[in-house]
Amino acid sequence: MPLQNAGRILSIQSHVAFGYVGGKAAVFPLQCLGYDVDVVNTVNFSNHSGYGRFGGSRTTAAELANLFELMENNGLLLCDRLLTGYVPGAEALASVKDLAIKMKQKNPELIYLLDPVLGDSGRLYVSPDCVPIYREALQYSTVITPNWFEVECVVLTGTRITDHASLRKALRILHEDYHVPNVVISSIPLKAWLRTALPPAAQPRDADAPDADFLACITSSTETTAGSELGTATSAVHVRCIPCLPGYFSGVGDLFSALVLGHFQPAPSVPSSSSRTTGDAQKESTLAYAVAHALSKTHAILLLTHEHAKGLPEEDRQPTDEELDAHEPERKIRRMRGRELRLIQGQDVLRGVAETEYFRMVSWRGFWDGP
Amino acid sequence: MPLQNAGRILSIQSHVAFGYVGGKAAVFPLQCLGYDVDVVNTVNFSNHSGYGRFGGSRTTAAELANLFELMENNGLLLCDRLLTGYVPGAEALASVKDLAIKMKQKNPELIYLLDPVLGDSGRLYVSPDCVPIYREALQYSTVITPNWFEVECVVLTGTRITDHASLRKALRILHEDYHVPNVVISSIPLKAWLRTALPPAAQPRDADAPDADFLACITSSTETTAGSELGTATSAVHVRCIPCLPGYFSGVGDLFSALVLGHFQPAPSVPSSSSRTTGDAQKESTLAYAVAHALSKTHAILLLTHEHAKGLPEEDRQPTDEELDAHEPERKIRRMRGRELRLIQGQDVLRGVAETEYFRMVSWRGFWDGP
Repeated sequence: MPLQNAGRILSIQSHVAFGYVGGKAAVFPLQCLGYDVDVVNTVNFSNHSGYGRFGGSRTTAAELANLFELMENNGLLLCDRLLTGYVPGAEALASVKDLAIKMKQKNPELIYLLDPVLGDSGRLYVSPDCVPIYREALQYSTVITPNWFEVECVVLTGTRITDHASLRKALRILHEDYHVPNVVISSIPLKAWLRTALPPAAQPRDADAPDADFLACITSSTETTAGSELGTATSAVHVRCIPCLPGYFSGVGDLFSALVLGHFQPAPSVPSSSSRTTGDAQKESTLAYAVAHALSKTHAILLLTHEHAKGLPEEDRQPTDEELDAHEPERKIRRMRGRELRLIQGQDVLRGVAETEYFRMVSWRGFWDGP
Repeated sequence: MPLQNAGRILSIQSHVAFGYVGGKAAVFPLQCLGYDVDVVNTVNFSNHSGYGRFGGSRTTAAELANLFELMENNGLLLCDRLLTGYVPGAEALASVKDLAIKMKQKNPELIYLLDPVLGDSGRLYVSPDCVPIYREALQYSTVITPNWFEVECVVLTGTRITDHASLRKALRILHEDYHVPNVVISSIPLKAWLRTALPPAAQPRDADAPDADFLACITSSTETTAGSELGTATSAVHVRCIPCLPGYFSGVGDLFSALVLGHFQPAPSVPSSSSRTTGDAQKESTLAYAVAHALSKTHAILLLTHEHAKGLPEEDRQPTDEELDAHEPERKIRRMRGRELRLIQGQDVLRGVAETEYFRMVSWRGFWDGP
């Protein structure tokens, strides 16, 4: 039996020949979920930058604008969802932003997931000129999926997220000044202040586990669903701690964002295909529902990848050591190769037919009580 | 449970943002079969040329060579299979050929499916300079999948396939002069001479059905498997007639070639996952086995696509009429859009979990008896 039409997504992000980041981490999972995906490549690179050596071509702003115009003139901008990720330069990003504005104006129901790919852990991947363009684009988004560093870059000038008050401030700016209805802070380290602030049900079960063993994922939605009311709060906030796996994996954010978009159901109804969620969705917000599924599948893929990497010959799983890597670039390359996401081997996870741990989001009542 | 590793394929062909031709028709099916696919885009276009209006950028020979060199230097040319399709210019095609030679020299077990994408029904899609480069590349291939027109372009100078003798001549040249072990003529119209020449078991069941209702697919393999002997024949030839669906679908050859490669099992053993084939494979050659699966899945996807197109509003399924199309380009665009392959909706077909009609290849004994 043919799958029901899930819909059509236009994905605009990077392409690498080898491995799974950008579009290579996003498109296949969305196809597995039943979406037709239109794919515009912002770069055509050999592999991701983590290998140390990489290259290829960047699609220019003019080339992007030309592709978008051809698609528009041919009546091929048919998607009901838009996903944008890594765009390396400000001019190209402006082309993408212009397209998003045009599509949103033409179809106000467009579900636009904007992943403001800027950097991580204090390092920018893109030109700093991209930041103001992202600021301008935010108002057209339905969901955004920054990590904590990207939140700081985009909305906090000179301050950082170091306590509950600055977290509240960042989310308030995103909702109220930039009019983003759904914010997902995809990952934020579980530092002491955050651990203390979390509602009890969201605390890691093992109270003695070190903070560094966990990341938190936070969702904040101003959209109410049947049976939920925001009252005086700015948004409904949910949170979940996820155990960290050792080492760095590339493309995780791209996979996660794609899955959030794939599972996001704007209507009050939820798909009946996944029985365990029929009840849950009543209690979770639309956003928290999508993020719980995205977190669960992303974590399961990371587990598969971690298990695979553990089984490799020792020379292919050397621990990260910048100094040794600098002396011998092959060392880093071998490690990176063994840590490419196991999307193909985990496609039953992506499709939701393999059993995986379900990371339900926990409602953070009282989040907005405070300065 | 994670899928077993099917292997790793490097796919080098076109990319379109919208729709399913080239890599967009080949990569997802191979991923569904469990292959990690490395993807090099020879063009980045908006949509396929059948829409009348299309555009984007071509990857230059230098850009391709640079990508291949980066991958080689990073130890990322790890694939055990290579798939090459549409490459629009002779220089770029020479880069691809050089890579194929290098990979084959490094790994003589490399399974290289070369689809010499030149044109169809008498029309060239590529620069004529590509033809001699394909001739040179043939000797490095494991399987080739030309249509009848491409066979004529590549190996017959000034003559055409118009009878059994010219078909024998073309296959003999491919096997003996160009050293191609496995030839698949993906489609050839069932004209009267061919219908007469076919073995009885390969005749269409309805003897009164017009020739135009069928295409034939012919395989010819010089590789012997356990229990089969060629004797004095040049190769083992198999054939199958497939009912034609009305109208033209784009990307069918790209899908078919990908599935031939995905199902091709060089070792004498065949995968045990598909129970119905365990017995069959004893009798079929390795090539005929792969082609039967590729034909069956391709035909099932075409049926889904045809059914979908039939259900569209009337304005989206106007019959082909070059004259009317010339007056109103939108007419052609609407028709093309409704005829994009339903790969996403048919993914259970690609994975082999949906029931589909099985097009077993029929052994063409006596094929080589004659001039």
